[in-house]
Amino acid sequence: MQRYFVAAEQFESSRVRLTGEDAFHAIRVMRMKEGDKFVVSDGESRLALASVTEAAAGEVVASIVEELPMDSEPAWSVTVAQSLPKGDKMELVIQKGTEIGAYSFAPFQSERMIVQYDGKKEAKRLERWGKIAKEAAEQSHRCRVPVIEPVRSWRELIASIALFDLTLFCYEREGDSAEGIGIRDAVQAWKSREDGRFEAGRAPKLLLVVGPEGGFTEKEANEAEAAGAVIVGLGKRILRTETAGLVGLTCLLYEAGEMGGA
Amino acid sequence: MQRYFVAAEQFESSRVRLTGEDAFHAIRVMRMKEGDKFVVSDGESRLALASVTEAAAGEVVASIVEELPMDSEPAWSVTVAQSLPKGDKMELVIQKGTEIGAYSFAPFQSERMIVQYDGKKEAKRLERWGKIAKEAAEQSHRCRVPVIEPVRSWRELIASIALFDLTLFCYEREGDSAEGIGIRDAVQAWKSREDGRFEAGRAPKLLLVVGPEGGFTEKEANEAEAAGAVIVGLGKRILRTETAGLVGLTCLLYEAGEMGGA
Repeated sequence: MQRYFVAAEQFESSRVRLTGEDAFHAIRVMRMKEGDKFVVSDGESRLALASVTEAAAGEVVASIVEELPMDSEPAWSVTVAQSLPKGDKMELVIQKGTEIGAYSFAPFQSERMIVQYDGKKEAKRLERWGKIAKEAAEQSHRCRVPVIEPVRSWRELIASIALFDLTLFCYEREGDSAEGIGIRDAVQAWKSREDGRFEAGRAPKLLLVVGPEGGFTEKEANEAEAAGAVIVGLGKRILRTETAGLVGLTCLLYEAGEMGGA
Repeated sequence: MQRYFVAAEQFESSRVRLTGEDAFHAIRVMRMKEGDKFVVSDGESRLALASVTEAAAGEVVASIVEELPMDSEPAWSVTVAQSLPKGDKMELVIQKGTEIGAYSFAPFQSERMIVQYDGKKEAKRLERWGKIAKEAAEQSHRCRVPVIEPVRSWRELIASIALFDLTLFCYEREGDSAEGIGIRDAVQAWKSREDGRFEAGRAPKLLLVVGPEGGFTEKEANEAEAAGAVIVGLGKRILRTETAGLVGLTCLLYEAGEMGGA
């Protein structure tokens, strides 16, 4: 069933409104008429099954048929920090990462970044990335849209490490063998250390840091480690930058018991 | 360091030749000269460090400096069977799947496939897919290039299930909750059942079956189950067809201990 994310103010106690592009999509693409149903969420506290009562151009009004449990969010909140990659790779990371279950995305700058960072284009790019996250969240039946943070400087990224319960820093040495411990060992060591610390309702916050095409410098890896990050490898095969984040995120959510079953 | 996959006949005991596009790439793109080194493999039994001795247009001759261990292949051979997706999504599955560590890819036809299968275009498409796999294998430092099987009919896919040690069939019910058991439970049940059956040197063969955009029909799921497949879910979030294969593959290789660490 079609899903839409709307602003909280579009919800009333027993009604909800779709506006703008969502209304256009519902009427022109989905061809919804009175009585047709869809799922709608404010991405925070409400997820509901709604039934169209008025389908006019530019606005769809629907009555709320049933409030639904918001239970498709992962037990761990994983932020994917991705050094800005070339071309449209960040879009792939956001689209696939949203489907897999990322909590948020934190693009950042690093030394060996190949792309030229252009602050002037940032607002436009954030808007585009936000739209991709929203569409992917609707398609994958998420209960919230992952937040795309503004692009951070390297210093800001390092400072943010202290805000997370666990930071994993993916770092591959030049050549074949992976630097650091594996993601499984890092997570299991953290789990046994933190066991019982997370009361019900408080999802642990994890940060997964992925380098650019050119990789991190050793200095960057050292700075991240000094700030509290655990250096991890993702195996013997060298993953492209846009693949590393998705693979690391999948492994983390697999450890959280989120990739099927139960 | 740059890697090339070449035909076995291009290897001699102490020399190796690059021809065609590989020679072009080495000379024009990498600007290799006498004494420059690269890694080269026949994808089967030899992986070597080589040093250029003659760099002529159309052919590079190199002396073998050192034979290297072929140790970057996963312990489990996972074939990703993907119902033909729309557009260029199969290319994404092949590129990313090769990086992650797929053994081979088996595109197949199924009932709710959205794309129109065109047998006449198959040779050209297989050639293109093979090229993507080769480039991704070189880039990710694989020791072999995953094979892309010719497109199978549904009947052929079902018949092939008997050739694998374990077949996981990703099937999501209409609506929110995942059908079947989780991939972790399926793999762990299989591991404890098969414990000790795989002698050293014989990698277990797994088949991961992913449906098209429209999903599998219940009849297809039943037929796969009757043929020996285990129906598995990939979690509460609905993954796009091209994401499901990559996520499932990552989870399987994570279980095999391949995604980082010793």
